[in-house]
Amino acid sequence: MEEISFAVDCMGGDYAPLEIVRGCILAAEQLGHRILLVGDGEEIEKILKKAGRLNDPLLQIVHAPESIGMDEPPSSVLRKKNSSLYTAARLVREGSAEGLISAGNTGAVLAVGKFIVGVEEEVERPAIAVALPNPRGKTVLIDVGANVDSKPKHLVQFAVIGHTYAEEILGVRNPRIGLLSIGEEEGKGNELVRETYPLLKQTGLNFAGNAEGRDIYAGTFDVIVCDGFIGNVILKASESLGMAVVQMIKEEVKRSVIARLGAFLLMPALARFKKKADFAEYGGIPLLGARKPVIITHGRANAKAIKNAVKVATDFLHTDFNRKLVENMKRLIPEGVKV
Amino acid sequence: MEEISFAVDCMGGDYAPLEIVRGCILAAEQLGHRILLVGDGEEIEKILKKAGRLNDPLLQIVHAPESIGMDEPPSSVLRKKNSSLYTAARLVREGSAEGLISAGNTGAVLAVGKFIVGVEEEVERPAIAVALPNPRGKTVLIDVGANVDSKPKHLVQFAVIGHTYAEEILGVRNPRIGLLSIGEEEGKGNELVRETYPLLKQTGLNFAGNAEGRDIYAGTFDVIVCDGFIGNVILKASESLGMAVVQMIKEEVKRSVIARLGAFLLMPALARFKKKADFAEYGGIPLLGARKPVIITHGRANAKAIKNAVKVATDFLHTDFNRKLVENMKRLIPEGVKV
Repeated sequence: MEEISFAVDCMGGDYAPLEIVRGCILAAEQLGHRILLVGDGEEIEKILKKAGRLNDPLLQIVHAPESIGMDEPPSSVLRKKNSSLYTAARLVREGSAEGLISAGNTGAVLAVGKFIVGVEEEVERPAIAVALPNPRGKTVLIDVGANVDSKPKHLVQFAVIGHTYAEEILGVRNPRIGLLSIGEEEGKGNELVRETYPLLKQTGLNFAGNAEGRDIYAGTFDVIVCDGFIGNVILKASESLGMAVVQMIKEEVKRSVIARLGAFLLMPALARFKKKADFAEYGGIPLLGARKPVIITHGRANAKAIKNAVKVATDFLHTDFNRKLVENMKRLIPEGVKV
Repeated sequence: MEEISFAVDCMGGDYAPLEIVRGCILAAEQLGHRILLVGDGEEIEKILKKAGRLNDPLLQIVHAPESIGMDEPPSSVLRKKNSSLYTAARLVREGSAEGLISAGNTGAVLAVGKFIVGVEEEVERPAIAVALPNPRGKTVLIDVGANVDSKPKHLVQFAVIGHTYAEEILGVRNPRIGLLSIGEEEGKGNELVRETYPLLKQTGLNFAGNAEGRDIYAGTFDVIVCDGFIGNVILKASESLGMAVVQMIKEEVKRSVIARLGAFLLMPALARFKKKADFAEYGGIPLLGARKPVIITHGRANAKAIKNAVKVATDFLHTDFNRKLVENMKRLIPEGVKV
């Protein structure tokens, strides 16, 4: 296996550092990559020692004493140069690592991604995308929180970024692109959408018109484009709806022995469904447009999610994603529509 | 029982006119109200005849020959004065009916609600609200599609409308109001949210700060306020997520006999859950701020949903909702924050 180095922020996330370090061990073991474990050197060493992996040449500790709180604003994050997150980003910028993985607070990871790792020149605003499951496959929703108050030309860039993600990472040829709105016809929606629609028509994208909320989980589009405020709210609402439904069904099930038996028999089928729908399986959300893979995992990421995030970062390198993204930005967006 | 008249648009919705007329029969039977069945007189007559209710004094046919397509723009709706929807709204305006129920296209119902039924003077922009289920009760999301590109002062009005809905219709005392954003702290979110936050602090509402997407189904707020573009997308995305999850689980269940047995044993518990989460049980979404109850039901509304929508309209009259809404608009919003 080819040896690539990745920097993993071991201090971010609800289960840091234990689950994160375990994820690094899995990644080294199963993917054969070299992992720079960035964070409190003593704590990381203890965990590696316990796992009997202290002398594994693929696992290298990089000590960074500071850590970042869940609500710290980006400005403060960018001043904490000895934090695990900042240090991990610096390792990527300096070329010691080929990608960054963190389960820390999203705003902080976005900040170091944009300003420390850096952004491709052609990309005015990098964006984060998720591939949401549906009965037919996956739909990319972009942006889900890197940008608010986007302008029409930014949404056009998100569309090209989403197109490239669907083609290169998900393997969808000529993906159908939808613009998130309320109402299908051109002219329906808010001001941002009404101004973006004619611009998308001028691009070389397979633009299929407005998408509605109901299209997000229906598989009718391969990519759905929206401002990051809306995308973020949808993503978090969906997750909370999932949890609420599970809890409400559990409460009903508890009330009957027969239902409890039924739930028991259903377990394997539900486990297969969960594998399709679960965040831990996906690994993480990439900051698309950054010069090197920057993968933001869920705050509740466990070892498996971290390992999968390293896998996602590898996919970006193997598909030469950034070169294709830059090409697409130049080729698909006509001069007048460029930012 | 007190006899109130309601105008029901019998030609709107996926299952019109059959299910709508059946719903009118249920409403007359179970609620004792007088229903004006507005639409194609011949068709409605046939259905009533078949049900043996042609001479029921509580069921009165009002012939209106035209109907409105699912994608017809509001401007065309307001010119079709002989449509079932316009006629039903006119009956309310003229005082022949105390409320309007329609399963027709939302934009069309909003148009006749605003311009034919009319809006309370104190309300600059009427809004539509849904009470979404969560493990602890319900959360009102407002606005879910009557308004796009709202200004901060409109969101303040939506908050007061939502407050009144939670207090008067759902029976929640001094409801906790949240402002939908991305990030909890004041200053997080987009421009609209950042400008609305300080205004909400000046009101007499129990304003509890920013809510996030994950709060929508968590029961952490009683009312969550947002622009109608976002609210509509969330509502439709939630519904589509629910359907996608059911379909994906069904496919997994089909693959195993044991899982099929498990699903069978779970049926009663799932039915109880469905009752809590199902649209048909709610009846419909009210256009709040209209001079008389205007209830928009789901396009897929069946007879039961129509009957429940009539029940919802009755609740608005019985609680004297509009008088309290107008009082709250005057009392809770300080002069400088008024539209």
